[in-house]
Amino acid sequence: MERQDRQAVRTDPLSTQALIIGAGPVGLYQAFQLGLLGMDCHLVDVLPHVGGQCVELYADKPIYDIAGLPRCTGRELIERLQQQISPFAPPMHLGHQVTELHRLEAGGFQLHTDLGLSITTPHVVLAAGVGAFLPRSLPLEGLQSLSGVCHAHQPMPSPAQAPHVVLAGSDEQILPPLKHWLAQPTASLTLLHRRSKLDLHGSDAAWVKQCLDSGRLRLVVGQAIGLAADDGALQALHIAPPDGDAFDCPCQVLVQCLGLSPKLGPLADWGLAMSKRRIEVNTRDFGTSEPGIHAVGDINFYPGKRKLIMSGFHEATLAAYGVAERLSAGPVTLEYTTASAKLHQRLKV
Amino acid sequence: MERQDRQAVRTDPLSTQALIIGAGPVGLYQAFQLGLLGMDCHLVDVLPHVGGQCVELYADKPIYDIAGLPRCTGRELIERLQQQISPFAPPMHLGHQVTELHRLEAGGFQLHTDLGLSITTPHVVLAAGVGAFLPRSLPLEGLQSLSGVCHAHQPMPSPAQAPHVVLAGSDEQILPPLKHWLAQPTASLTLLHRRSKLDLHGSDAAWVKQCLDSGRLRLVVGQAIGLAADDGALQALHIAPPDGDAFDCPCQVLVQCLGLSPKLGPLADWGLAMSKRRIEVNTRDFGTSEPGIHAVGDINFYPGKRKLIMSGFHEATLAAYGVAERLSAGPVTLEYTTASAKLHQRLKV
Repeated sequence: MERQDRQAVRTDPLSTQALIIGAGPVGLYQAFQLGLLGMDCHLVDVLPHVGGQCVELYADKPIYDIAGLPRCTGRELIERLQQQISPFAPPMHLGHQVTELHRLEAGGFQLHTDLGLSITTPHVVLAAGVGAFLPRSLPLEGLQSLSGVCHAHQPMPSPAQAPHVVLAGSDEQILPPLKHWLAQPTASLTLLHRRSKLDLHGSDAAWVKQCLDSGRLRLVVGQAIGLAADDGALQALHIAPPDGDAFDCPCQVLVQCLGLSPKLGPLADWGLAMSKRRIEVNTRDFGTSEPGIHAVGDINFYPGKRKLIMSGFHEATLAAYGVAERLSAGPVTLEYTTASAKLHQRLKV
Repeated sequence: MERQDRQAVRTDPLSTQALIIGAGPVGLYQAFQLGLLGMDCHLVDVLPHVGGQCVELYADKPIYDIAGLPRCTGRELIERLQQQISPFAPPMHLGHQVTELHRLEAGGFQLHTDLGLSITTPHVVLAAGVGAFLPRSLPLEGLQSLSGVCHAHQPMPSPAQAPHVVLAGSDEQILPPLKHWLAQPTASLTLLHRRSKLDLHGSDAAWVKQCLDSGRLRLVVGQAIGLAADDGALQALHIAPPDGDAFDCPCQVLVQCLGLSPKLGPLADWGLAMSKRRIEVNTRDFGTSEPGIHAVGDINFYPGKRKLIMSGFHEATLAAYGVAERLSAGPVTLEYTTASAKLHQRLKV
């Protein structure tokens, strides 16, 4: 219901020559290559920030196999790519998940996101990595549709009465919701984790220990194996401890702080030819089975494919030429950034 | 004769898991990817230094389209790649042109270079750019086989008597031979160029002007259209000036300072399937029509091919996996440099 309300806010769809789904390293470089060939594009990513896996999985870990960068962290690579695409300043729609893709009768596509954005474009480039990163949920059927249930990055529920609150998680993701609920009237505040040892360090660990020692927060060790609800509202979680009998834990607000999980999500429903849950592409321009839709980076598949950033950069380059040739309905000549005045103008150098 | 003498010096052929022909950016990255997968390799390049086109054509010009490097010169890119491959320290044979390639009956290949190097290997990766860069010559039939004729980067001839010397060229490449011959006894010292304007600047231009003004060097403007030789030794060049009649210019030593020209050279004779003077490859592992020979970078051709360094990096990556799978006779699992202890050990980090 909320989604429909939000969609109604925006009536005019945006329009662009190419829409890139995924703002990880390959999606960003896709925007660069499209810009270099004189095309505009928009980027959409389900995460609230650019960088994809580079930032989610190894922001501070060094990468050693990017050609010309003997050592750089995931975050550094993303910062370098952001600087590289800055001459083209592609609009970015972050925190949006693409929920619908329609082919328009007049040609091209219309896309909708869960936050009500609508974009029409003749070209879609899927650079969505291993799919969309979605917040990980407790594996209880029907849980996500209940009121009072949310994920750590979402707005916290505002119940009428002081609720029993459960935070599920063990790492620094629990800190913002913990601070939020410590400042609210609650009937109880519980941290739910499989083990008694939390994944916290330093001052964070000390502060949470202090919350536990003072009784403002209690730790429940176990796994949620069931739930109780009343009129669409969560009321309790059924918890199985490591040993002993299962028990009910009262819960009107559940905040899932369980990290992100890669999901192909709605992309899997678009009717594209797939191979092993990845999208089949040709190696000429990384087009999919659907004319006008290209797929680059970890989401695609072709014989010899390796899920490497360097391959994604190449794929994005040839996909940009593919898009350019479709737009110009003819061959596009390669020009070099070392020598071309036209490219220098586009790069603003 | 000299080549045969030099070949006789080395009797034992070197042996390596992969030989890379071409030490430009793609050849260097090829060595990195082979090293990352635990293989050793040697590099051969006809130029006396690494870098290929990056150094020959745009050493000081900025490149803007290397992913993660918003701006770097050709030389900087090469320096970065040299640093990147330093953990693997592949032996480099610079200034060698591969002249022969034989398939061995026992499997694998044996290669010979013009400087007498002999290498046996089960895998050859051609990363030779637009071919080998060969020194450009005056277009006179039979000229190169005459004694007294050389190119700027070669040892200067040492004739018995003070010769008539002609330097053909107009840019800074003339400076070392000019200095050499100014210090030698000569009958005459001539600079031959099509136009009266030289391609020199600053102190270089001033110094050459001084040589001309003082009469130690004379400038002949025109094109060499013929030659006179006696017993296999050059004696004169026949020169056509921009206007007026052709004339003879005495010449016992000719130093050709005309830059480098890309030539596919002997690679064209190896029996590989070609398309538009480029070597046909598959896009799975960039193998050629000859099992065990791969081709990466500007020298190869496949549908969609663009002569871009970023594509060469991808091609080198998949070629390395292709070589690794041939060596292990089975699938090779991808590991990431962010996480793999094995790769960290190989990278010495």
